[in-house]
Amino acid sequence: MDDSIFGLSPRRLTGKAAHPGAWVTLTPLGGLGQIGMNCMVWSTPQAKVIVDCGLMFPTDYHLGVDVVIPRFDYILESKEDILGIVLTHGHEDHIGALPWLAPHLSVPIYGSPFTLTLVEHKLRERGLLNRVKLVTVGPSAPLTLGDMTFHFIPVCHSIIDGYALGVETPAGKVVHTGDFKIDPKPLDGPGTDLGAFRAFAGKEGAALLLSDSTNVEREGRSLSEREVLVNLRHLFKEARGRIIVTLFSSHIQRIQEVFDCADETGRSVVVGGRSLVNNIGMAQELGRLRPPEHLYVDASAIPPLSDDKVVLLVTGSQGEPLSALSRIATGGHRNLSIHEGDMVIMSSRLIPGNTMAVNTLVNNLYRLGAEVYYDKEHPVHASGHAQRKELVEMIKAVRPRCFVPVHGEYRHLVKHARLAVGSGVSEAKAVVIENGQPFTITPAGITLEEPIQAEFILVDGKGVGDVGQAVLKERHVLGGEGMVLVVMVLDEDTWSILYGPEMLSKGFVFEQRYDYLLEDAKCLVLDAIEGHAPGDMGKLQERIRTSLRRFFRNILDRDPVVVPIVTAV
Amino acid sequence: MDDSIFGLSPRRLTGKAAHPGAWVTLTPLGGLGQIGMNCMVWSTPQAKVIVDCGLMFPTDYHLGVDVVIPRFDYILESKEDILGIVLTHGHEDHIGALPWLAPHLSVPIYGSPFTLTLVEHKLRERGLLNRVKLVTVGPSAPLTLGDMTFHFIPVCHSIIDGYALGVETPAGKVVHTGDFKIDPKPLDGPGTDLGAFRAFAGKEGAALLLSDSTNVEREGRSLSEREVLVNLRHLFKEARGRIIVTLFSSHIQRIQEVFDCADETGRSVVVGGRSLVNNIGMAQELGRLRPPEHLYVDASAIPPLSDDKVVLLVTGSQGEPLSALSRIATGGHRNLSIHEGDMVIMSSRLIPGNTMAVNTLVNNLYRLGAEVYYDKEHPVHASGHAQRKELVEMIKAVRPRCFVPVHGEYRHLVKHARLAVGSGVSEAKAVVIENGQPFTITPAGITLEEPIQAEFILVDGKGVGDVGQAVLKERHVLGGEGMVLVVMVLDEDTWSILYGPEMLSKGFVFEQRYDYLLEDAKCLVLDAIEGHAPGDMGKLQERIRTSLRRFFRNILDRDPVVVPIVTAV
Repeated sequence: MDDSIFGLSPRRLTGKAAHPGAWVTLTPLGGLGQIGMNCMVWSTPQAKVIVDCGLMFPTDYHLGVDVVIPRFDYILESKEDILGIVLTHGHEDHIGALPWLAPHLSVPIYGSPFTLTLVEHKLRERGLLNRVKLVTVGPSAPLTLGDMTFHFIPVCHSIIDGYALGVETPAGKVVHTGDFKIDPKPLDGPGTDLGAFRAFAGKEGAALLLSDSTNVEREGRSLSEREVLVNLRHLFKEARGRIIVTLFSSHIQRIQEVFDCADETGRSVVVGGRSLVNNIGMAQELGRLRPPEHLYVDASAIPPLSDDKVVLLVTGSQGEPLSALSRIATGGHRNLSIHEGDMVIMSSRLIPGNTMAVNTLVNNLYRLGAEVYYDKEHPVHASGHAQRKELVEMIKAVRPRCFVPVHGEYRHLVKHARLAVGSGVSEAKAVVIENGQPFTITPAGITLEEPIQAEFILVDGKGVGDVGQAVLKERHVLGGEGMVLVVMVLDEDTWSILYGPEMLSKGFVFEQRYDYLLEDAKCLVLDAIEGHAPGDMGKLQERIRTSLRRFFRNILDRDPVVVPIVTAV
Repeated sequence: MDDSIFGLSPRRLTGKAAHPGAWVTLTPLGGLGQIGMNCMVWSTPQAKVIVDCGLMFPTDYHLGVDVVIPRFDYILESKEDILGIVLTHGHEDHIGALPWLAPHLSVPIYGSPFTLTLVEHKLRERGLLNRVKLVTVGPSAPLTLGDMTFHFIPVCHSIIDGYALGVETPAGKVVHTGDFKIDPKPLDGPGTDLGAFRAFAGKEGAALLLSDSTNVEREGRSLSEREVLVNLRHLFKEARGRIIVTLFSSHIQRIQEVFDCADETGRSVVVGGRSLVNNIGMAQELGRLRPPEHLYVDASAIPPLSDDKVVLLVTGSQGEPLSALSRIATGGHRNLSIHEGDMVIMSSRLIPGNTMAVNTLVNNLYRLGAEVYYDKEHPVHASGHAQRKELVEMIKAVRPRCFVPVHGEYRHLVKHARLAVGSGVSEAKAVVIENGQPFTITPAGITLEEPIQAEFILVDGKGVGDVGQAVLKERHVLGGEGMVLVVMVLDEDTWSILYGPEMLSKGFVFEQRYDYLLEDAKCLVLDAIEGHAPGDMGKLQERIRTSLRRFFRNILDRDPVVVPIVTAV
């Protein structure tokens, strides 16, 4: 057990004050404590830059919530100081919160061509495009913002055009890996060039490394995309009927592999699902995707093709009920169907919250007579995140004096910090930091600043942050137990009943079946008012609520929300 | 692709009619199409017996539901014919639905000593014990019910005292594996004795094998319990602080391993969590558990012990919020806590629906400074279900003429049927059957009968089956979007407003923040009534609902349940 990484005590003497011109303070707003919602503010004496602006998808607990974003108050409080937003790559957990931040800042957004294409599409859809300025950056042209210079180092990941950042700061060189893996023989492009990292870090090594912790619990190395291609090619050769492939729609490299396999086996590709159609179009426009000989992005316009001449490339790898694959599997797609002899390849990771949905989907596909290949048994997907051996290689290439793990839940961060210590970083300088804990790098090392407020902001429709614990709790009780409404109108002088009591169940019981129960409940309401003197309406409603809750608990062992609506006129 | 297993067409000529005295019909009510809820009715010319009576835990979709059980109508329609309920082992998915069936049948329940101890406990807790008769059975004493004779063949599983069934029926020998694995060197007892299966099946092989499909997607063999013990022992030796172990409370064998490791390292065992305390007590009474030298089942009575002298054995391996481990991790347990230097061993499988809860738990444990060992990285748990090699060994030991996979989702059943074909069963006789599809074995083979209604029955409190699709849908909408109530009282003659409109949000918005919005909504209600002639209350309410839904969608992009409660007095 290594004590140092569980709570480094602030040593302020070595901080900013001691190095007035030579510091950089990093303030994590998201991604240090969860996988998703990556966002960090980099501040120096002369610059303030935001790196990534991601969202997180809600968990089951967040009933009715669309997305979760970081709290931006810290940024907005000094928004005139911000010089720009730098993006590492185009996944939602790195760009997805831009619609809620970018319009409030009149600063450029910097990123690779494909990253910015995705950002542009996202902002245009929401009518926000005219409020932002997008600036393409790349490996050959470093970007200087104030006293920081950003170098863009291409990395291999499950999306094209991803960059790590090599940043010259007043406190020395800082490397931020973004999301990465190290694929020694990438299918396309230079992959993650450790030489470039070594060159940037120089003889001395970097002052700080921020590195992706997602796969720190996995030993060894991640699967190479080349091996995935080998397996896909094998399946394509084996298939006798139709092939249906589903994958993450931003995984352009994988889409290229499917295109190539289709060409090799003389199959036409039919694309189903809006996000795939969009992303394929955008990647083609940028010249990043070579289309196959026969490509149909409009499923209604497919010519008659025999089963062994077609590949369906569709969205829905997570069992999303409205996706192309789910609709095909339940017979709800107008132009596409699945039948006996078809081969379905699920070329994607199963996100844990989606297990039930994907199981249901796979079982339905088997019921239709298809054979389904998924990651559990067949390596038809490779993770985009470095595993332990690769993480060590990165640490050894950058040779950082300080190390802060990013992109991970707490346990990932702890394990990654330990890995760094095992790879040569001193125990006092491999530090587990969570969202809201700013830290400063100086030539002397790492120090902690006063924490700021950093929390999840829930977005539900157009409401940002208005769904909090109180509303969520109401939703859980309503969803779990349902509700009983009691409606009654009284004469305001005599409190004789003018209307009701009427009982209404919403999600509590099936009214027709339990009419006798609701009749009994009405009698309890009448009892409550009979023994009650006119005047205190609050007391009467409380009495009705208590009496009915007790009754429902006794009879049914359930505890619905009881809302007595008694008015006196 | 093998056509035959996707839909065997009924061939009635070879069925019951052709073999009047020599048939057995099996009617699956649960477990063939899901993992859980196992229950099957065995019928012959002179007997009707129920094998297992399990429940399933609800999925996220089943909001507010406690447990899911099979529909028992088919049994209850001819309950006077039932001769008994035979149980294979004591897990919830094999005995958990007994409280909803056993009281309606005056027949004995047969099972092993430990199985019946668990049944007794379960029925006593619900005041149902006096209504049933429990009869212990075992390997040395076959049980004859009508024209069937049940032989009990011990199997290795993640609970002690599990049996497979070797049944002599008028149609020949039928083997039902129950849940099993094959552990060649079991820690305790004979394990799964393939010789006994071979002996029962005899020279000819069995007429039918029903076999556990749970792990058919896993290659090779399951981990041996002996290897788990080696790993536990290793961790116990390494630990410097306290050791906290969590596991499934019915896994008596594993509990014994923890007890033994504690004795070997001179540690006292403190038990936390009601189900563990109960099960340990029951297993001890049956002489199936040797307690360690120092055992404390009452956490409030622990003597002062130094950290390196104690093991906490606690419930909560699935992150259940009220379990001992979760309460310890959040500081909510009166007598137990976790601190820097403690070692937590999660010696159990992670059930997919619980991923989030377990992740949160593990992260909290790391925050407290504990080191957590779980299955992902360290083999501290072994599955209780046979993997592919073991499944083949079972098929080869029994050499069945017909094969029906049980205990699995649809895809598991398909893959297991294929495995059987690959292991020598003829393609026409390895058949995928789902719940509600009775099938008959005769000397000539397997035929399908008319399907019966078989579905999930949801239990919510004391309500059995009253929560159906309609109520669930209401709960989902309420939970996801919340509700807005509009209360108004009108004069029944003039329709002038006597009270309201009042607006009430439940799970929709935080009222204080959106009072302006609710004020605007009130104006819309007033508009609706102004343009409306007195008389048709239904129309008015519909008008209010439509107007408010449109308003909330426009302003907030949300769609709560709108309930207008307008009364005229």
